[in-house]
Amino acid sequence: MGKAPEEEHPVKAFGWAARDTSGVLSPFKFSRRVTGDEDVRFKILYCGICHSDLHSLKNEWGNSTYPLLPGHEVVGVVTEVGSKVQKYKVGDRVGVGCMVGACHTCENCENNLENYCPKMILTYNSVNYDGTKTYGGYSDHMVANERYIVRIPDNLPLDAAAPLLCAGITTYSPLRYYGLDKPGTKVGVVGLGGLGHVAVKFAKAFGAIVTIISTSPSKKQEAIEVLGADSFIVSTNPDEMQAAMGTLDGIIDTVSAVHALVPLLFLLKSHGKIIMVGAPDKPLELPVFPLIIGRKTIAGSCIGGMKETQEMIDFAGKHNISPLIEVIPMDYVNTAIERLIKADVKYRFVLDVGNTLKAA
Amino acid sequence: MGKAPEEEHPVKAFGWAARDTSGVLSPFKFSRRVTGDEDVRFKILYCGICHSDLHSLKNEWGNSTYPLLPGHEVVGVVTEVGSKVQKYKVGDRVGVGCMVGACHTCENCENNLENYCPKMILTYNSVNYDGTKTYGGYSDHMVANERYIVRIPDNLPLDAAAPLLCAGITTYSPLRYYGLDKPGTKVGVVGLGGLGHVAVKFAKAFGAIVTIISTSPSKKQEAIEVLGADSFIVSTNPDEMQAAMGTLDGIIDTVSAVHALVPLLFLLKSHGKIIMVGAPDKPLELPVFPLIIGRKTIAGSCIGGMKETQEMIDFAGKHNISPLIEVIPMDYVNTAIERLIKADVKYRFVLDVGNTLKAA
Repeated sequence: MGKAPEEEHPVKAFGWAARDTSGVLSPFKFSRRVTGDEDVRFKILYCGICHSDLHSLKNEWGNSTYPLLPGHEVVGVVTEVGSKVQKYKVGDRVGVGCMVGACHTCENCENNLENYCPKMILTYNSVNYDGTKTYGGYSDHMVANERYIVRIPDNLPLDAAAPLLCAGITTYSPLRYYGLDKPGTKVGVVGLGGLGHVAVKFAKAFGAIVTIISTSPSKKQEAIEVLGADSFIVSTNPDEMQAAMGTLDGIIDTVSAVHALVPLLFLLKSHGKIIMVGAPDKPLELPVFPLIIGRKTIAGSCIGGMKETQEMIDFAGKHNISPLIEVIPMDYVNTAIERLIKADVKYRFVLDVGNTLKAA
Repeated sequence: MGKAPEEEHPVKAFGWAARDTSGVLSPFKFSRRVTGDEDVRFKILYCGICHSDLHSLKNEWGNSTYPLLPGHEVVGVVTEVGSKVQKYKVGDRVGVGCMVGACHTCENCENNLENYCPKMILTYNSVNYDGTKTYGGYSDHMVANERYIVRIPDNLPLDAAAPLLCAGITTYSPLRYYGLDKPGTKVGVVGLGGLGHVAVKFAKAFGAIVTIISTSPSKKQEAIEVLGADSFIVSTNPDEMQAAMGTLDGIIDTVSAVHALVPLLFLLKSHGKIIMVGAPDKPLELPVFPLIIGRKTIAGSCIGGMKETQEMIDFAGKHNISPLIEVIPMDYVNTAIERLIKADVKYRFVLDVGNTLKAA
């Protein structure tokens, strides 16, 4: 305790961190633990930029501590494994998602739902088992217990696989848990960003009929031709919304800005479900009548457990599901964050850490 | 069309109706149809007073037309059956709940979910197949298609059985549909009125461990000793709420006033569900973070289909579940409505129609 980040652990590490709520990232020297018996250490090659990185960098959720080194869509190649590691060896293509630890004794952990463990340790801006702070994937390497390591299927490109570790599991898990993974199911996706475009790909792979609900008519052509969505509704067009009333079994709502639920509830059939995976920082207005009259559900979902994360990425491998990305160099990160605020990205920035992160 | 209510149909009927948004009830002459081939006609003996009668009488939901003759917890004895009626005969103890018709061709109707049919015909303040208005159970007799007739188990007293037809099915159906009907499930019930007290009885009969969440400490002793609840939390007591945090699998929320959802969400375990069966007339505040972090659900439920209504009342018969009621004479109805507004009833008023409704 009290030691400088560079002195806390034996192994030198390097990345880019924000020092205050400006959120501006700059080069940062820190350290990571030695490889424990059950640990896997890997050289980071790529790291996705998630919308929650942005919220954390600027302390918009009120729980950030600085220096803050983000990144929880982290992929690379194994460089060292502990003596008790069973599943991985040096040279394996692996990744780490949103978490690196949990209690492993609670009911959720026992059910492979570490993501709902009250003691879950996040990949960054969290406190590790030893009391030190966790630093994310905008850095040269990472070390984690093998339970939190995911194997990347051979056929997936590493750069495009990175966003699956957060955006992928965040949308795959609710499609499965809430029963929206059956062929012929009518699934809506609200918001066509990092999460939304992956939700479309998974839903299509499950055999669903997918409707995108978006404020941006300009995204329509690509959504249909490139992402394979079956239809596209401009949410500000009352005629289009009216025509789609009562047609959807479920909606994955990825929007993290405050927005109206009523129009979405009206798109649902009876017994339909809206699943929130974006987290507006202010409460939404919930009208109760439409919930009751159609036995409708509004629910949440938070990433997924490690077992399901591996299952998700194996499924992505099998179905050749890759997020659409813009690969950028490390020193472009602050510009990328600015562009992300304006939703100016199709559909995920991925940092080329391996080739562009230069040690000081 | 255009005919006076007394002239619309061949069969004279009599009850109490409100003539305007004052909601004050007074004697009212009208008429009902002849007994059709598939119809059952019965003499009304008892009718429960539901909280939605109050909303309808005063047009608080904005859809009331007058004269308005409420009552959808209606029980009595069959006096006539149509030639094609298969399940009932003269003398049977029967009832009608919230609806008397639907389209019978949509997906919901085909799945015995007439209660979610967009063309559902309500027992009162609705429009019947023939275009005439429906009038409820604050009246001398009723006629309905046998699909909408429920048989009352022999061992249930008719007066106490009446509220099962709305309050009973409204709470039984979500306990079943949302999986809160397993032994050992921890179920919360918010609001200890007509719906809430029946929810407690059904949940206990399913083997659940039941916690009542109420603003009224004065209800505690009876809730535990008479209704059989396992525990009682005063929702305005922060210590009691804190102690119960994260303990419930599901909550049946019967409160129809605007209220806070956050404290209820915190009472849920991960993957827990709040089921709204009361309908506040203004939107509630929905914080999205707690939904996401614990994969929690807020959902609605609206009465139940006719098949499930019969199943519910047979279950009530088997487990000797009777609502606790205060039986009142017809001319006390306006006073009863006033007392209902003040929640001054344990726990349901039931009109003794058979003995106290006097023809003009």
